[in-house]
Amino acid sequence: MIINKLLPRACMLLSYMATASAKSNESTSLGIILFDGYQPMDIWGPLDLWSSMSRYKDIQLSVISHKVGPVTSKTPPRKGNPGAPPPERVTIGPHVMATHSFDNAPPLDILLIPGGLGNRALEERGDTRMEEFVAARYPQLRYLLTVCTGSTTAASAGVLEGRRATSNKASWDFVVTHGKNVTWVPSARWVVDGNIWTSSGVAAGLDMTYAFLEHYYSDDHETVQKMMNLVEYAPHTDPHWDAFSIVHDVPGADKDGSLVDCVKPVGY
Amino acid sequence: MIINKLLPRACMLLSYMATASAKSNESTSLGIILFDGYQPMDIWGPLDLWSSMSRYKDIQLSVISHKVGPVTSKTPPRKGNPGAPPPERVTIGPHVMATHSFDNAPPLDILLIPGGLGNRALEERGDTRMEEFVAARYPQLRYLLTVCTGSTTAASAGVLEGRRATSNKASWDFVVTHGKNVTWVPSARWVVDGNIWTSSGVAAGLDMTYAFLEHYYSDDHETVQKMMNLVEYAPHTDPHWDAFSIVHDVPGADKDGSLVDCVKPVGY
Repeated sequence: MIINKLLPRACMLLSYMATASAKSNESTSLGIILFDGYQPMDIWGPLDLWSSMSRYKDIQLSVISHKVGPVTSKTPPRKGNPGAPPPERVTIGPHVMATHSFDNAPPLDILLIPGGLGNRALEERGDTRMEEFVAARYPQLRYLLTVCTGSTTAASAGVLEGRRATSNKASWDFVVTHGKNVTWVPSARWVVDGNIWTSSGVAAGLDMTYAFLEHYYSDDHETVQKMMNLVEYAPHTDPHWDAFSIVHDVPGADKDGSLVDCVKPVGY
Repeated sequence: MIINKLLPRACMLLSYMATASAKSNESTSLGIILFDGYQPMDIWGPLDLWSSMSRYKDIQLSVISHKVGPVTSKTPPRKGNPGAPPPERVTIGPHVMATHSFDNAPPLDILLIPGGLGNRALEERGDTRMEEFVAARYPQLRYLLTVCTGSTTAASAGVLEGRRATSNKASWDFVVTHGKNVTWVPSARWVVDGNIWTSSGVAAGLDMTYAFLEHYYSDDHETVQKMMNLVEYAPHTDPHWDAFSIVHDVPGADKDGSLVDCVKPVGY
């Protein structure tokens, strides 16, 4: 039992040490993927933190999708299963403009992949362009970050082979069918394996992004913490806290884990 | 001291009772305002929760700005003060498409106003169209919600006269110069006064929105709580918890308040 608790912590420590963080005066090319039916906060939570960092750091943003132009968070039409209730769909969502397609995105340092019900629609249509893009770009990335079921895209792209990863706990049955030789971690707010960071669902992207920014801008904790307090977010800082793995009854979850997490402003 | 603590709680209880929540089978016309330089999570945090509710409830969304078309969260050019460092600016932000202008927005049940550095740019230019829109529409709204410095827009529109409200604690000096006869509450994650809900900065919009959805869909707590656990957000549920009023040394803040808040999945 002790080794089960120590091993993930040891892995994460080694992962942190293995990757090189940015010097704060460097420019960062950040790419975010959008697809019709993406989950808004998967992208916009992290993007708020990155946007706020852009007050202080040089960051270039590319918004990448199947084609240049509008992308909606409304769920595209989905096939139902015979006899089952119609699949749930998100019916509202502004259009956000993709600046690049999978064919012409610029060189990237960091790529962020969201989840969302749109994933299911793409799979139903057999559309694998997003996975092909991730597979092609991964070798040149400094970091790959996924939120929620975005890790299923990474898994299907083959980049999680032999790695540990997590995902949205409400969708676990769907998640674990993806990828070969992926160690899907049932209790984790986020997981770090090498240069791949994967978070649990939706709001967990905020917590992972804070931890990532502390890692990435490790020579300037003061600015990262100042930014978090400007956005008044008191993050979950323990990647092993995963109340939602209990709520969603994930097989293999640590049922003795705490439902409660006590948070406060960073730096205090 | 006791009356100082009891009175805000009594006011909030009366406010809850005074407004009528929706029947869950009714349609809701939700309007969100965007302006160049809005703070992304002020809108997209709440909008993720509303989007997720749209799986279960009939919601119509209007994205309203100065004109139909693209709106960015990048900060527009701002004037500096002579001798002072240049004002901070957010330099990255996708374009989001406004569906309506202040001139042609449809009838609305609920209007959500974000904050962001773009507010300052509009004030510097003497552009008051947003405030005029809010003032004109407020009498027909069921609810007005503001996040962060969005409450300064409501104050300048005159709708906070005689009311209690709060705002981003990092911008407090800027905030309290707005509006006539507004009781600016220095320690509050959010404030409810009649049908106007105002939250503290950025991430506080998520907490206020959860509380609002429990109020608005009071005949269906089960669905609201199911939605919150799908998005894996454990909200701050005490509107009086305001660690950031202490962090930002807000005059009049409750310095004895707790920096720590212990949160857990709703319904657990």
